Amino acid sequence: MSQSDHPAMTESALESSYGGESMAHMRYLIFADIAEKEGFKNVARLFRAIAFAEQVHARNHFQRLSKLKDGKKVVADAPFGPGNTSKNLELAIMGEEFEVNEMYPTYIEMAKFQKDKEAEISFRYALEAEKIHAQLFKEAKKYVDQGKDMPIDGFIWICPVCGHTLIAKEPPNRCPICAAFGKDFLKF
Amino acid sequence: MSQSDHPAMTESALESSYGGESMAHMRYLIFADIAEKEGFKNVARLFRAIAFAEQVHARNHFQRLSKLKDGKKVVADAPFGPGNTSKNLELAIMGEEFEVNEMYPTYIEMAKFQKDKEAEISFRYALEAEKIHAQLFKEAKKYVDQGKDMPIDGFIWICPVCGHTLIAKEPPNRCPICAAFGKDFLKF
Ligand SMILES: [Fe+2]
Ligand SMILES: [Fe+2]
Ligand SMILES: [Fe+2]
Ligand SMILES: [Fe+2]
Ligand SMILES: [Fe+2]
Ligand SMILES: [Fe+2]
Repeated sequence: MSQSDHPAMTESALESSYGGESMAHMRYLIFADIAEKEGFKNVARLFRAIAFAEQVHARNHFQRLSKLKDGKKVVADAPFGPGNTSKNLELAIMGEEFEVNEMYPTYIEMAKFQKDKEAEISFRYALEAEKIHAQLFKEAKKYVDQGKDMPIDGFIWICPVCGHTLIAKEPPNRCPICAAFGKDFLKF
Repeated sequence: MSQSDHPAMTESALESSYGGESMAHMRYLIFADIAEKEGFKNVARLFRAIAFAEQVHARNHFQRLSKLKDGKKVVADAPFGPGNTSKNLELAIMGEEFEVNEMYPTYIEMAKFQKDKEAEISFRYALEAEKIHAQLFKEAKKYVDQGKDMPIDGFIWICPVCGHTLIAKEPPNRCPICAAFGKDFLKF
């Protein structure tokens, strides 16, 4: 049973998502340093921006577990095998697609079934951002596989509330996913 | 069996350690923001510095798995239940002590038994740093529980190779754990 105010199954999905997001964040920090060394400055910037979006997701899941007060075994999926930037983008796409196609849709159903609105929102915020991440990494891979850096027209903006990610000259007025103010977005 | 150049048991210990370090890194980033908001500037600085040390550990474990090329289920322990800085330091101490008393000593024995020198070094580097982390977090907690920020005389220095952590005015000439040059240490 759960000590938190979440049903036990959904609680464990939050813990697992915290684990998955923490590992994704870490992977992208490592991949950013490799991209930087290989001269793909914008791809490095993309990895750092998206690492921050994963931090927002991890924090959201983690803070919904504030009633807990001890250690848990976390089971979470992660792609392994860092290499050059082309291989790293392949792993990044693999991770994002797993979250988009399987993990978050399943966890959303679970949270709905268990009537845990708070967890459902945390999973939904992540799902919406991961769809964009998968897209952006695929675009980056097209350039890198031709030996080119990805062009970025403007900046990469990250919503500090839901992790929404976009490339633009200016942030939107309000976040299209969670309605946070664009002036609070982080710029990369 | 293992696809990597590590025996399967030790490989899975590296994966688990990557998961644990990624979650520790994330926890400390979250705890740093909370400490900052509560006015504990030096405790926030300590959390950010140690978050970077955990990033060094995670990167070391991850890069030893470069022969892999797909998704794995990772099982790793983590403390849950963020609150105010006093509670967060308690969780931080719990995590570090688990690593110092159980996790890394056991993984080192496992790597030795399986004659995996590369993994053994990665675990040893982490173990040495975690001992210091546990100490520093305990010291911080003494101050925070009296409503005071922790005094830091000089800077917090982190070795970029092994995550060795120390508070001093200047970095050492060479890292006492891995012999990296002090001039490469990161300053927080
Ligand atoms: Fe995410
Ligand atoms: Fe993502
Ligand atoms: Fe948002
Ligand atoms: Fe560590
Ligand atoms: Fe540590
Ligand atoms: Fe070192």
